Amino acid sequence: MTPARPATGTGTNHEAVRRHNLGTLLRHVHLGGEVSRAHLTTRMQLNRSTIGGLVTELEGLGLARQTQPSPSRGAGRPSAGVTTAHDGPFVIAVDLGVDRVVVARVALGGAVEQRARAAIPSSAREAWQVGSTVADLVREVVSGAPPAAPLVGMGVSVPGLVRRSDGLVRLAPNLEWHDVSFGSIVLAALGLDVPVTTANDADLGALAEQRRGAGLGIDDLVYISGNVGVGAGVILGGHPLRGAAGYVGEVGHLRLGTEGRACHCGNVGCWETEVGGLAIAEAVGCPAQQVASLDGFLDTYTGPLEGLREIGEQLGGGLASLVNVFNPERLVLGGYFRPLFALVGDEVRRALAARALPAPMESVSLTTPGLGADSVLVGAAEVALEPLLVDPVATMAQAVRDVPARLAG
Amino acid sequence: MTPARPATGTGTNHEAVRRHNLGTLLRHVHLGGEVSRAHLTTRMQLNRSTIGGLVTELEGLGLARQTQPSPSRGAGRPSAGVTTAHDGPFVIAVDLGVDRVVVARVALGGAVEQRARAAIPSSAREAWQVGSTVADLVREVVSGAPPAAPLVGMGVSVPGLVRRSDGLVRLAPNLEWHDVSFGSIVLAALGLDVPVTTANDADLGALAEQRRGAGLGIDDLVYISGNVGVGAGVILGGHPLRGAAGYVGEVGHLRLGTEGRACHCGNVGCWETEVGGLAIAEAVGCPAQQVASLDGFLDTYTGPLEGLREIGEQLGGGLASLVNVFNPERLVLGGYFRPLFALVGDEVRRALAARALPAPMESVSLTTPGLGADSVLVGAAEVALEPLLVDPVATMAQAVRDVPARLAG
Repeated sequence: MTPARPATGTGTNHEAVRRHNLGTLLRHVHLGGEVSRAHLTTRMQLNRSTIGGLVTELEGLGLARQTQPSPSRGAGRPSAGVTTAHDGPFVIAVDLGVDRVVVARVALGGAVEQRARAAIPSSAREAWQVGSTVADLVREVVSGAPPAAPLVGMGVSVPGLVRRSDGLVRLAPNLEWHDVSFGSIVLAALGLDVPVTTANDADLGALAEQRRGAGLGIDDLVYISGNVGVGAGVILGGHPLRGAAGYVGEVGHLRLGTEGRACHCGNVGCWETEVGGLAIAEAVGCPAQQVASLDGFLDTYTGPLEGLREIGEQLGGGLASLVNVFNPERLVLGGYFRPLFALVGDEVRRALAARALPAPMESVSLTTPGLGADSVLVGAAEVALEPLLVDPVATMAQAVRDVPARLAG
Repeated sequence: MTPARPATGTGTNHEAVRRHNLGTLLRHVHLGGEVSRAHLTTRMQLNRSTIGGLVTELEGLGLARQTQPSPSRGAGRPSAGVTTAHDGPFVIAVDLGVDRVVVARVALGGAVEQRARAAIPSSAREAWQVGSTVADLVREVVSGAPPAAPLVGMGVSVPGLVRRSDGLVRLAPNLEWHDVSFGSIVLAALGLDVPVTTANDADLGALAEQRRGAGLGIDDLVYISGNVGVGAGVILGGHPLRGAAGYVGEVGHLRLGTEGRACHCGNVGCWETEVGGLAIAEAVGCPAQQVASLDGFLDTYTGPLEGLREIGEQLGGGLASLVNVFNPERLVLGGYFRPLFALVGDEVRRALAARALPAPMESVSLTTPGLGADSVLVGAAEVALEPLLVDPVATMAQAVRDVPARLAG
């Protein structure tokens, strides 16, 4: 968040520095809501007139607007504020689950302006079928967008392994997808050409929770996504972990036993066979046709807890491995683990404490997402907005306008 | 490795930039051996005269010297070279095992100038006893140091959990140490005051292998330390992982079964009970008094392989969890796993391939350390030299001289 001064052979590239500073200022506004110029001056270590120039340029780009000083904010000369523009740019966020998909229009600043949802029946899980469903939802959520508002990109969350270099879905086991370029399929169905970023659901949940949720200010965080499968998004030292190709965090396939249910990966004893959505649904007698909304089912569940207690213990035991391996400061329990934790949190905590090493256990706290069920959706919006926060000038030059009219046609 | 230009409130801090560039140039020389000025000009994106000035300053500090152009190195005007100074600074590296300790004097540039080794009998594992042994070895290895050579620090590797903030050994289970400030104990025994960096053995192995061994040029690497306990040092995206307090990589306590030998951590089924030094020694009938040199025992082992094959499979099965969780490009098998892999490598590879997910498995390669049995020792030297590569001026100002005479007294 500090201004970089990239080096070149013989001197500083002022244009690159200016664009970087523009992006950094916009990032503060995007994440902080309305921020004062005084705050920006301090955080960015730039003087008031430089900040003023950057704000004026962001206004000209249609990204920010100035607000009046608020006299109530403490002593001293009140400082004028900066916030996001009305009718500013937006992105499309797609949270693809195994049996449902949520699509949202999200504005710069992070507000979800409009959202739509559809079931994905098991009879229609081919990538082109799901792509068509998503395209319909996109048309729905952009219908109410201000005509002048530019679309800068789309972020897609997938419950599977996504190659970082090109967003190819290598494997979405519970959708039975192999090597699917899902972003391209959706764009083709829409007849639209915008940048698409596709990523793993748990990675996006971790990003969103760190930026706007239960991980605010936390540098070492693990977000566990408990859906049909189980995965983790890991941020250590403030950096999201990627690995060689982007597959970090496939913790659902930690072997936590030598027997048990068969896993889709071909082995037995995988953690996700013991704590994933299917095991939870079985434990609470959730009917097959309601597994798509298992979180809602659990939110109102009042039946016997015996089966869930066992799952809670298996969850805590597996979390202990994550504490030993990643030494996080915070563990965020997303997906179905959110309502599960409300029901059998004691069992989870006890099993975790019994199994983790004392030293890394000292500094870890266990929590549910600050963004509720929206972590992954918000994360998809954040990665789609990211280019705007890196280079607002270049990104706005490529943004697509008149989107409602284009997609209605 | 590129020159940074740190920002301050109103402009560039030239002195900070110059010191940073001095350190960066020295780092190239330290890691690259003799490097040409032309190479430095390209790598550091600075012009020839700036490089020349930095080299002259490093000469003045006693850190570098110029070499004659080598006419055999391709076309064009030959470029003068830079290498480390004769009688330049050195560090003390300590590789503390459970039953033996190795101490070395290591010069800037990475050469091990002198080394000494001692057994740690189980009757003398108190921290003060081991500290006294280490102090004796330090006196031995510095005895041959050039009188003018300055000592800049000491790096200590410990087989246990080390708190990053202050180097406190929170737990070295097989030495039965809890909350031991081992670095301070050694300095007190020596009557010496130099900076000490204490770190986990696997973390240091990973660092050394990435800088000088099997991980050269690899950004995503996991080094597995197989000793009495099992741990991992993890580097992802070029950054060593630390976690909230420095305990990342306690993979020996991944639960890979629900039954088995009791682990010192209080649980059963921990990976290290199945593949650690005690299990290996039992499988090959290594006598108790030779466990201290189990690697040498395995290097010359010609007995039956049945028991080792099973350990090889358990090793491969656990490595699969690391591939799924970290998605590394390279797995380096250190400690006892180095000779074990030579004996039952096929079993390790087969179990790994059977258990890991195909996508992360595509990009991973399995290897033994490029530095042989010295990875951890070299890593301890690297962390001790690190301050010199960050700020050579300040570090040399604080270096201790006449060390042989001081310690002989």
